[in-house]
Amino acid sequence: MTIRVGIAGLGTVGGGVLKVLAADAAHLAARAGRKDVKVVAVSARDKAKNRGVDLTSIAWEDNPIALASRSDVDVVVELVGGSEGTARELVSTALSNGKHVVTANKALLAYHGPELAAMAEKANVALKFEAAVCGGIPIVKALREGLIAYEISSLRGILNGTCNYILTEMEATGRAFNEVLGEAQRLGYAEADPTLDVGGGDTAHKLALLASLAFGTLPDIDAVDVSGIQNISPADIAFAAEFGYRIKLLGIAKRTSDGIEQRVHPAMVRARTPLAAVESSFNAVEVKAGEAGPFLFQGRGAGEGPTASAVVADIVDVARGAVSPAFGRPVAELKKPEKVMREGRISAYYLRFQVLDVPGVMASVSQHLADEGVSIDSMLQRGRSPGEAVSIVMLTHEAPHIAVERALKAIAASDKVFETPCMIPMETA
Amino acid sequence: MTIRVGIAGLGTVGGGVLKVLAADAAHLAARAGRKDVKVVAVSARDKAKNRGVDLTSIAWEDNPIALASRSDVDVVVELVGGSEGTARELVSTALSNGKHVVTANKALLAYHGPELAAMAEKANVALKFEAAVCGGIPIVKALREGLIAYEISSLRGILNGTCNYILTEMEATGRAFNEVLGEAQRLGYAEADPTLDVGGGDTAHKLALLASLAFGTLPDIDAVDVSGIQNISPADIAFAAEFGYRIKLLGIAKRTSDGIEQRVHPAMVRARTPLAAVESSFNAVEVKAGEAGPFLFQGRGAGEGPTASAVVADIVDVARGAVSPAFGRPVAELKKPEKVMREGRISAYYLRFQVLDVPGVMASVSQHLADEGVSIDSMLQRGRSPGEAVSIVMLTHEAPHIAVERALKAIAASDKVFETPCMIPMETA
Repeated sequence: MTIRVGIAGLGTVGGGVLKVLAADAAHLAARAGRKDVKVVAVSARDKAKNRGVDLTSIAWEDNPIALASRSDVDVVVELVGGSEGTARELVSTALSNGKHVVTANKALLAYHGPELAAMAEKANVALKFEAAVCGGIPIVKALREGLIAYEISSLRGILNGTCNYILTEMEATGRAFNEVLGEAQRLGYAEADPTLDVGGGDTAHKLALLASLAFGTLPDIDAVDVSGIQNISPADIAFAAEFGYRIKLLGIAKRTSDGIEQRVHPAMVRARTPLAAVESSFNAVEVKAGEAGPFLFQGRGAGEGPTASAVVADIVDVARGAVSPAFGRPVAELKKPEKVMREGRISAYYLRFQVLDVPGVMASVSQHLADEGVSIDSMLQRGRSPGEAVSIVMLTHEAPHIAVERALKAIAASDKVFETPCMIPMETA
Repeated sequence: MTIRVGIAGLGTVGGGVLKVLAADAAHLAARAGRKDVKVVAVSARDKAKNRGVDLTSIAWEDNPIALASRSDVDVVVELVGGSEGTARELVSTALSNGKHVVTANKALLAYHGPELAAMAEKANVALKFEAAVCGGIPIVKALREGLIAYEISSLRGILNGTCNYILTEMEATGRAFNEVLGEAQRLGYAEADPTLDVGGGDTAHKLALLASLAFGTLPDIDAVDVSGIQNISPADIAFAAEFGYRIKLLGIAKRTSDGIEQRVHPAMVRARTPLAAVESSFNAVEVKAGEAGPFLFQGRGAGEGPTASAVVADIVDVARGAVSPAFGRPVAELKKPEKVMREGRISAYYLRFQVLDVPGVMASVSQHLADEGVSIDSMLQRGRSPGEAVSIVMLTHEAPHIAVERALKAIAASDKVFETPCMIPMETA
């Protein structure tokens, strides 16, 4: 009674998984219904590297794809990364060969999830990816198996620890985005190329997977409307606080009359709400599920411990014999999501303008908003130095995105207005 | 491919389960691996009562125990309640007869969990109880299947919605415990006999179950040290706020050098931490799990929607074929927990004394604490009206419970001290 594991990729997470499986085999076997979980083969770039784990009794493959064809491997753990190339080939070969797959690869699943899930169904094996979203938080399991009784109406998450760390640091220190990003890179909290994180792409990958589990949509990265945190300024964070809000990069999936709306953007969330209280590199997901919700799940979204925790839980699930569709429902029953365009979206907005403090500017700004039917809920003006730049900050009532955008375009055309006006949706519901 | 369900008890939760199963059969079948979930028989006190669900195609049993012997029932759902009598007989008969059991009955499992889990193991059927702890929050699943890779060091939860509602209302309105309790009873938020809730017993039942899942202990209510919220005063809540704390009734299970400590008591938790932010009737559980944690799970702990959500998820789990030990590990591997006595426990404490404001009282209070080796971290005195009663409030440094208790006994003996001194542990770690 043994489940035999092959691991591709022995970086931080792979090393962590090896350590956990070596350290507490008896405990895991009890959890797995008295099945031993045993690593029989591994593959990584550098065979010589010391990983603090004894590999002598484990077969080594120079080519990770070979793991997918070993007759002594029941589960392939893919920790190679990337949506194409080796990772994709390894996973699809393993599934074709009737092997279970456990992966931490959100990009692979966001782009090729339906195809791979269909292969898994055909072979009647498991394709599990708890580690791909929110690290150790068992949110995939919660959506796939726990919160299934009532229709989910919305899901909102802080899904990228790097962005939340940067926003938290900007708030705590008043420093600018680029400065905090640079420090995060030096500390190893942000990648050398941070685009995928700060641009919102990583959050979009995870959101597409969560939306699929929550709403029965095909994971479809093209259906997600994405903007990142690169243009958030310390001034906006400070003004948000004055109005009783914090700025968070949210991934949001919501049932609307036009279909399942999926979007990633910085948002104003009310201070003293659970999502607003999520600090530093923590992740959190809030789920509204009819009479059963709301739920909040919070934890560390990345790093060796949280990610290895999720991978090991998936392996033990497989050992226990839990084979169910990757996205909770058979692929044939998943629906292609509509791309809900931002233009028609109704929301209240936070707006900031940098204007020259001369008579008539405020009247002009207000008039442009009124022309588009955008009405103002509250307003704040800072830095009265006649003839110099001042900030005008407004919270609007609900208005269509397109109307606000048109008003901002007209306002930005004035030579009394500096910088591109800032526009951040309010997420208060 | 049908899983046939018999439900005993059609109150709020049972009615909710019926409604969910009737409303979205196709969706649940997809979740259950294309198995239909069908209610074939029910039992309740009053056959005539209108529950808003069509029962004509469902068999009726006057005696719920009969459900356990029907050949057309695969899963018995026990929503009768109570740790003895009908509930116990129904569950044990169903398990003996090789039927799966889903229950929301925390008391039954807290008292008879090991015996019933052993029967389930013997018959190779599932005994599932997600609904027994924290309503719809999938915390049982998370502990049983999700957070298994790293050793859990502590678990702290707000497990009783009635207590958290009362404490939240007392804080918001400044009203006394009895007044808020009376209102909660009129509104239906508290039972006519509130002892089990406000005395901490209900929290203890749930804690014993969570501790079993987290630490591999036998659920053992006698190992839990329990005190309730009956003696919390609005003054304590207000003083807590001044020091930057809130008072919450916590269930705490912790790995210590003496074994797994399990206790239920009002505690001072730092404001601006996730547990402190849990408002009204919400429940929450925080889990520390080595390098993977901390985790926080939050949601509604009771009521039709949350509880029915958990019951339905358990039924679908059973339909999917997920049979694993009730408490995560085989009963034979669960260890009897030590009762860790409060006397030796080391903690910092919040203390409040009502004293006559005459010279020498403060010196006397301080001296009694010093005599027991209890040192003071910070102090506050309120209400300077010479010759009248004033409050002296202190936060102590860490000290053994027994030492603080001895000092309080000596202090209370003085005729300058009114009321029993108040003593609340600080939970800051």
